Amino acid sequence: MTISLGTASLPAFTTALRNLAHCLEKAEANAAARKFSPDVFCGQRLAPDMLPFTAQIRIACDAAKNGTARLAGIEAPKFEDNETTFAELKARVAKTVAWLETVSPAQIDGREAVEITFPVGKEATRTMAGQAYLLHWVLPNVFFHVTTAYALLRHNGVDLGKIDYLAGASA
Amino acid sequence: MTISLGTASLPAFTTALRNLAHCLEKAEANAAARKFSPDVFCGQRLAPDMLPFTAQIRIACDAAKNGTARLAGIEAPKFEDNETTFAELKARVAKTVAWLETVSPAQIDGREAVEITFPVGKEATRTMAGQAYLLHWVLPNVFFHVTTAYALLRHNGVDLGKIDYLAGASA
Repeated sequence: MTISLGTASLPAFTTALRNLAHCLEKAEANAAARKFSPDVFCGQRLAPDMLPFTAQIRIACDAAKNGTARLAGIEAPKFEDNETTFAELKARVAKTVAWLETVSPAQIDGREAVEITFPVGKEATRTMAGQAYLLHWVLPNVFFHVTTAYALLRHNGVDLGKIDYLAGASA
Repeated sequence: MTISLGTASLPAFTTALRNLAHCLEKAEANAAARKFSPDVFCGQRLAPDMLPFTAQIRIACDAAKNGTARLAGIEAPKFEDNETTFAELKARVAKTVAWLETVSPAQIDGREAVEITFPVGKEATRTMAGQAYLLHWVLPNVFFHVTTAYALLRHNGVDLGKIDYLAGASA
């Protein structure tokens, strides 16, 4: 038996983003309980030279969306980075999951050896075969930004546990 | 074409831990440059009710080690949680990678439908098929703790960038 590249990628992305959406719901409820606007989270950073919460959410979404598009050899929709509120960040996650759900694992299956060239930073590119691109680039990247968003919420006093990140609403 | 469960798991774990080792090296050099002991990092936390840096390293290692053992249906060595210094944490990562290198992807291949029961917290267990266990539990867990360790170092002023996490010394 073997597994397919499509079933090793898409379900991991959608689960990670659904769990992120669950963490955002808990953060919003926590802000309400503590009587401040959840928009306060948007600008929070773990270090002055790290990207703020808003960027962590955008990049988590784009890593999954653009990674999926490159793995499948299709075009992804371009989402503008124009969110200024927590509600808009929730919508960014929701529309990313909705787009991921339009892609079928079959569109990715069989492409594990296809060379994929992708941007790294503002000017450079890298090229990796599909399987390596998934395992050593896209998955670590998606989890990096989802975890950093989680860490920012925890650092700001939101009552999350790792099970929220791992299993979300189904925990 | 398809991919195998062994090649979708082991290389991702060893790469993640090697990149973590690279980040630890940079953190040690940074501490030396700023004239404090790297042992100071060991007790740092992002929130009072989050586990400290030392635990993040231990759990990152154990998530990869014990996940691999369960995926392969073999026994993993038990490493005592007795590290008190930064150097000992580096050794924990190194011995985990060394053990992972003794396992072959072939020992994991074909086990994607095998039911795996694993501990969740101190008393509960969960059961998932091999492929789901890898994608929805082990990989997110490994990346969670590696990223949290990275975030702790960044929060404490270490000059790391995401490329250190993604590509380590080969960046």
